[in-house]
Amino acid sequence: MTTDKATIHTEVDAIRDALERRKRKRMRRLLKAMHPAKIASLLETLTPAQRISVWQQIDEPLEQKVLSHLSPALRAQLTQEAGAGEDTEPSADATGAESTAGGADAADETQLRVVLEALESGKLKRIGRLFRKLHPARIAGLLESLPAADRAAAWDMVEHGRMGKVLRHLHEEVRRRLAAEMEQDDLVDAAREMAPDDLVDLIQDLPGDLGREILLTLNRRERERVESMLSYPEDSAGGLMNLDQIAVRADIKVGTLLRYLRLLEDLPPNTDKFYIVDRGNRYQGIVRARRVLTAKPETPIAELMETDFEPVAVDAPEADIARRFEAQDLISVPVVDPAGVLLGRITVDDVVDVIRDLAEHSMMGMAGLDEETDMFAPVVVSSRRRAVWLGINLVTAFLAAWVIGLFENTLEQVVALAVLMPIVASMGGIAGSQTLTLVIRGLAMGQLGTVNTSILLLKEIGIGLLNGLLWALVVAALAIVWFGNWAIGGIIAAAILLNLLCAALAGVLIPLILRRLGIDPALAGSVVLTTVTDVVGFFAFLGLATLLLL
Amino acid sequence: MTTDKATIHTEVDAIRDALERRKRKRMRRLLKAMHPAKIASLLETLTPAQRISVWQQIDEPLEQKVLSHLSPALRAQLTQEAGAGEDTEPSADATGAESTAGGADAADETQLRVVLEALESGKLKRIGRLFRKLHPARIAGLLESLPAADRAAAWDMVEHGRMGKVLRHLHEEVRRRLAAEMEQDDLVDAAREMAPDDLVDLIQDLPGDLGREILLTLNRRERERVESMLSYPEDSAGGLMNLDQIAVRADIKVGTLLRYLRLLEDLPPNTDKFYIVDRGNRYQGIVRARRVLTAKPETPIAELMETDFEPVAVDAPEADIARRFEAQDLISVPVVDPAGVLLGRITVDDVVDVIRDLAEHSMMGMAGLDEETDMFAPVVVSSRRRAVWLGINLVTAFLAAWVIGLFENTLEQVVALAVLMPIVASMGGIAGSQTLTLVIRGLAMGQLGTVNTSILLLKEIGIGLLNGLLWALVVAALAIVWFGNWAIGGIIAAAILLNLLCAALAGVLIPLILRRLGIDPALAGSVVLTTVTDVVGFFAFLGLATLLLL
Repeated sequence: MTTDKATIHTEVDAIRDALERRKRKRMRRLLKAMHPAKIASLLETLTPAQRISVWQQIDEPLEQKVLSHLSPALRAQLTQEAGAGEDTEPSADATGAESTAGGADAADETQLRVVLEALESGKLKRIGRLFRKLHPARIAGLLESLPAADRAAAWDMVEHGRMGKVLRHLHEEVRRRLAAEMEQDDLVDAAREMAPDDLVDLIQDLPGDLGREILLTLNRRERERVESMLSYPEDSAGGLMNLDQIAVRADIKVGTLLRYLRLLEDLPPNTDKFYIVDRGNRYQGIVRARRVLTAKPETPIAELMETDFEPVAVDAPEADIARRFEAQDLISVPVVDPAGVLLGRITVDDVVDVIRDLAEHSMMGMAGLDEETDMFAPVVVSSRRRAVWLGINLVTAFLAAWVIGLFENTLEQVVALAVLMPIVASMGGIAGSQTLTLVIRGLAMGQLGTVNTSILLLKEIGIGLLNGLLWALVVAALAIVWFGNWAIGGIIAAAILLNLLCAALAGVLIPLILRRLGIDPALAGSVVLTTVTDVVGFFAFLGLATLLLL
Repeated sequence: MTTDKATIHTEVDAIRDALERRKRKRMRRLLKAMHPAKIASLLETLTPAQRISVWQQIDEPLEQKVLSHLSPALRAQLTQEAGAGEDTEPSADATGAESTAGGADAADETQLRVVLEALESGKLKRIGRLFRKLHPARIAGLLESLPAADRAAAWDMVEHGRMGKVLRHLHEEVRRRLAAEMEQDDLVDAAREMAPDDLVDLIQDLPGDLGREILLTLNRRERERVESMLSYPEDSAGGLMNLDQIAVRADIKVGTLLRYLRLLEDLPPNTDKFYIVDRGNRYQGIVRARRVLTAKPETPIAELMETDFEPVAVDAPEADIARRFEAQDLISVPVVDPAGVLLGRITVDDVVDVIRDLAEHSMMGMAGLDEETDMFAPVVVSSRRRAVWLGINLVTAFLAAWVIGLFENTLEQVVALAVLMPIVASMGGIAGSQTLTLVIRGLAMGQLGTVNTSILLLKEIGIGLLNGLLWALVVAALAIVWFGNWAIGGIIAAAILLNLLCAALAGVLIPLILRRLGIDPALAGSVVLTTVTDVVGFFAFLGLATLLLL
């Protein structure tokens, strides 16, 4: 009895300590190991606020047992708490998969509201209840919609068996942050549920020693597989592939294959084809699952086999693979090493992510952002990252200012020039960014090579000429009406025409030159372009004015 | 004999006429109907240039027959021509599916060069030979890489049996243009090979009467299907769905299903599941093909059936469907009407196109371009389209100029202000576009609702404050060094800080307000934002200067 009391004392202390230091995970672990009666007596000694906090960390199976040990008043209070969530979550059972027009958005909103309110009131169990009903991808989406500071609390409410699946659906930055905060044991558990390709992604995001720890917990066969995948670049076929392909020999019959498949009981997702290999595991061809389904058992596999289905080389870049999947409407492709040995397969679910990432990369890159950026990253982190882009832009802005400074004397004499000069720069910038965007997309789609660049250049210069003439006339007319000065009208017309022609030239050539230099045009293109159109715009306008007006 | 001669005369005239009016298609049709000997004698009467043109339109099976009727000299010349293509196309047999690092690009280039050279020299047969080796998607890519004027000639060289498949892979604008130029018969033939969902897309692109003509050539059952699909919006589940689903009843056994599938001989692509319906064709659940492959023949289908797989409502918006496919790694989903009746299914190949389109839409929209834009559209067409965007931008540029004009008096006295003012506007524009891009992506991914907007707004204002302070100090220091004027340094610092805070506010609120107004934020966001940052930047800087310096 005394030892027992001593134990209670220690456990209670530990929980009080965890409570103070807001270590929810530790609290949960401690509670799991305690007898329900002890928990009940602990709960009775706590302040109401502490009591709610501890109650939130008690798992559902334990709840009833603890309740039975409580005083009736407290029992009533906490029972209400336990059930309270259900009534206030009208759409929480919407899985986000609903698709009545606009309905999904409303369900998304409601779920997000439930989580935010639960976080605010500390009633974390509601989050756990909601998460249990949702798809891991939706949980990932909800986590990304939360402020970075609140994410860890919500993340703790994800069931252990599903953490790996949720991690897989998070953007890189959020995933790295949540994984880094996890207890090592939990991380290892999560890693165990992951497919090798997702595990490889995770390990690449983690600090080296943590990655190694995870590797060590795998069995030898798995470890060797993951290690071999880690040796390929993340954005190559090797980094994308999975190892769950089903490979058979060509000399069997459909019936034999079916018997083999029945032994497996279930097939990996996205199994639309089986791979045919020779004795040395060299890739020979494919047999589509739908041909197996429709063939007679006595048909030889060789008869259904397609030998002209090209495998993907293990070092193929992901952009090429994505383009092939899109073009040929594929579900899976085999990956081979240079000797033709079948290494694995790439499936459409991973390719969809690549397509989305590449497209987002072009868009986000133009604003100097990374497509893996966390929308709710801490203010200081985001500020530092964006400061770099603002700094680069400042250099170009000062360059433009320096050009204007060359003509200080002119500006002093004709102040109307200062009023009109931003128009010249702005029109050039807009026209140039249209061309630039088109070229960046053309490059991403592989539709622009050296052969047709000159054709595009001519076309863009033609557009620059037509639009330049049109808008030069319009702006000149407006300037003349405004300032009653014909010379200024002529000068601004000439400057706009010139700047639009330069913008067309720059819009086509800058991304091509950047690409040849190994610089990503989606990232650097818009800054360089703006520099050109600003400098040319100001220089042409103020230079012409200096020549003609003074 | 006389009638025969008369016929030859008429045919020759017709061909000469087609030759002069460059009607290649008509020429080809005429040649097909002619006797090889007549073609041979025609060829002998033509000029060398005309001869090559006519020869390019003779189909391969006919070539040998025509050659045998020719004089030996002419035969040698044309035989050489017939084989000439093969040697000069070293990589033409690359299907674009090759994936050695960087190799795909080189193959793409070579194919494009072959086509461009063939177009220039009028040796169109080479294009036909190349196209026969390529995947329809790659042919579509090549066609889109050509100048608009040359496309029709290359398009004519696509085999008739594959025109439908190529049309399906083209961007809307190019497809509409090529389809409009086709002979009606050819268009109807192409339409016949297309899957109903692709056919629906095509009909929506065509002028109404042409679409109706195509509908009339379908049999009644097909016509009813396509007409019902045409009644749904293009960007809804109804517009995306196909009608090739395999639906069975729950009371059969696996063996019965397999026997039924064998009767079908082959299954539609992307058949990863079979749909279970009741007597009234109402959706009950799914059975995955992989479960069928691994189940014993005597297992009842009901045992493998999953009833919790949510169908998609026929009016669900495509963005929601794309998000669900991405999140849940799907290959196909059933589409149901409000009464739960199974209408069709949506497959991942079409969803990949939606994902790509939506992502491109955000990127292209920011430059005022449409994601279906043809990179090589005629100059006049492109100019007109882009002029609209430039015109809108001009209004905002004049608004900014008007703000500057308010301070003409100040500028006259302190010309340094004119030099520095673009820096204030530019920094605000860049900071604002970063926030804007992030918010537009957040909206597109469904991660931003009214619940967490205020959190994001606070975060962005925090970033604006930190970066505003940092760059205000840097710019102030540089301005003081440049102009030796402490007051100007203080003024520009204040203006930059103010503009960066406004940019954060505008970057978050503008897309949300536009969306509420039913205006696409990806399209209008950047113009509105630039207007705000320009006006605020100029007004703050010049306004403060007027107050403090004069």
